[in-house]
Amino acid sequence: MNLEKYLDSKRKIIEKALGNYLQAPSQKPQVLSRALRYAVLGGGKRLRPILVIAAAEQVNGNTPKAVPAACAIELLHAFSLIHDDLPCIDNDDLRRGRPTLHKIYGEGIAVLAGDALMALAFELLAQTGNLQVLSEVAQAIGRQGMIGGQIADLEAEGKKIKLSQLEFIHKNKTAALIKASIRAGAILGGADSQKLKILSNYGEKIGLAFQIIDDILNVEGQEEKIGKKVGSDNLKKKATYPKIVGLVNSKIMAQKLTREAKASLKNLPNGKILQELADYLLSRIK
Amino acid sequence: MNLEKYLDSKRKIIEKALGNYLQAPSQKPQVLSRALRYAVLGGGKRLRPILVIAAAEQVNGNTPKAVPAACAIELLHAFSLIHDDLPCIDNDDLRRGRPTLHKIYGEGIAVLAGDALMALAFELLAQTGNLQVLSEVAQAIGRQGMIGGQIADLEAEGKKIKLSQLEFIHKNKTAALIKASIRAGAILGGADSQKLKILSNYGEKIGLAFQIIDDILNVEGQEEKIGKKVGSDNLKKKATYPKIVGLVNSKIMAQKLTREAKASLKNLPNGKILQELADYLLSRIK
Repeated sequence: MNLEKYLDSKRKIIEKALGNYLQAPSQKPQVLSRALRYAVLGGGKRLRPILVIAAAEQVNGNTPKAVPAACAIELLHAFSLIHDDLPCIDNDDLRRGRPTLHKIYGEGIAVLAGDALMALAFELLAQTGNLQVLSEVAQAIGRQGMIGGQIADLEAEGKKIKLSQLEFIHKNKTAALIKASIRAGAILGGADSQKLKILSNYGEKIGLAFQIIDDILNVEGQEEKIGKKVGSDNLKKKATYPKIVGLVNSKIMAQKLTREAKASLKNLPNGKILQELADYLLSRIK
Repeated sequence: MNLEKYLDSKRKIIEKALGNYLQAPSQKPQVLSRALRYAVLGGGKRLRPILVIAAAEQVNGNTPKAVPAACAIELLHAFSLIHDDLPCIDNDDLRRGRPTLHKIYGEGIAVLAGDALMALAFELLAQTGNLQVLSEVAQAIGRQGMIGGQIADLEAEGKKIKLSQLEFIHKNKTAALIKASIRAGAILGGADSQKLKILSNYGEKIGLAFQIIDDILNVEGQEEKIGKKVGSDNLKKKATYPKIVGLVNSKIMAQKLTREAKASLKNLPNGKILQELADYLLSRIK
């Protein structure tokens, strides 16, 4: 199967499951039901849930528990986007080519809808019956993970920061949840400690590469492809790789991380999909 | 032991544990560490965590896992207060007699600090090793619980609503987490299904009574005792019991619920503390 077909088939499975996990638009309070569906079912690459499923498959073929875990991680990603887009944080009007949630439903509903998605995500993680996965995901999004990184990112706006500080931001803000996605799938698939170590390393590399690529696309991407305003990072004086090391060096770093991620898989059987996924992420900036 | 001494001793245990679970103020990002400590360690009755511990004790004397669960539920309560106080939701400047978190740290940090507390709460719940408790708590705070109730509350502002709608709001916004606190303690203590049913019923009754009492105190309480502005519900045109059924009937309902809560415990041994707790909550309006 080629990668595009693989991604499409997994996206279908994930979107169907997400639609089932979200309550019907008629369920009370209706405004919340509608807001959650708008935020979660409105497109997106579904990268993180695909990584969960691909990692589980790499270890153990078919792993039914990977789907609720994959959906939980996608809900956590959706929650983080809703809150980050708020006027008091990144103040973005556009997401995936549509108005952001607070532009449609107001800020109060957007805050609470994000909260509801986080709570639902942990309900789904509990369904996997795996406390290690649940605990790792909670840490990956928490004060020493995604949320900590987002706060460091806010703090760095308009300031001169070192590359090491930028690495801290990107590692936490983005790479932590991507690495946790890979680890969740691997653990649910029953990976032994050596396999888990290899896959964790892969997850960390592509996670960091992903944010560097995102930074690059914010400079030279196209609005219709990235679904948000090109140049918005610069306007907000965000700390980004292109700003700190330049566009050329950013591309070299993304390429190097992708190469390392792929190389780390060389001793694993059935690693082809994960290798192709790493290349696919990089291809967005070519 | 009299109740005041009991409450004090449990508060000390909970506050010590909360202080340990929160990272040191020097931990990066420092602004987040400081904000979390300000929000969580700044007083409060600690009612919910005390209910967790008291229910666990009722069933099984000493239950060490009750403390992390109790702290998790207190963190979830703190998260909900931070978000509800935001200008885009209830717009409160004062909480427990001090400026609300966003007045000190700004709205962006307040949103993200609330998020971090929710993530930490689920980390702690995972430590109890009990997926049923974790799952029930996730549901109690979610779209069909606290957050759903808060949204229904926002939607009802300034509108004429029926008593049944007000009951929906109060049951979800407040009673769901109080009931979950009792159930969490009971389950961790190893309650059988009959005991769990009795304690759940008690939790639901005092949960509803608690919100009615809170509504009454917002009308005729004292600012220095309730820690927030008296009359603020009325200013915001909130749907409350005094507004819908009047002050006298609200008091009668709170008394009736308290009586029923206590009566439901009559066949349980060691129920004295829980009975006294129900009276203690009611005594706030006497």
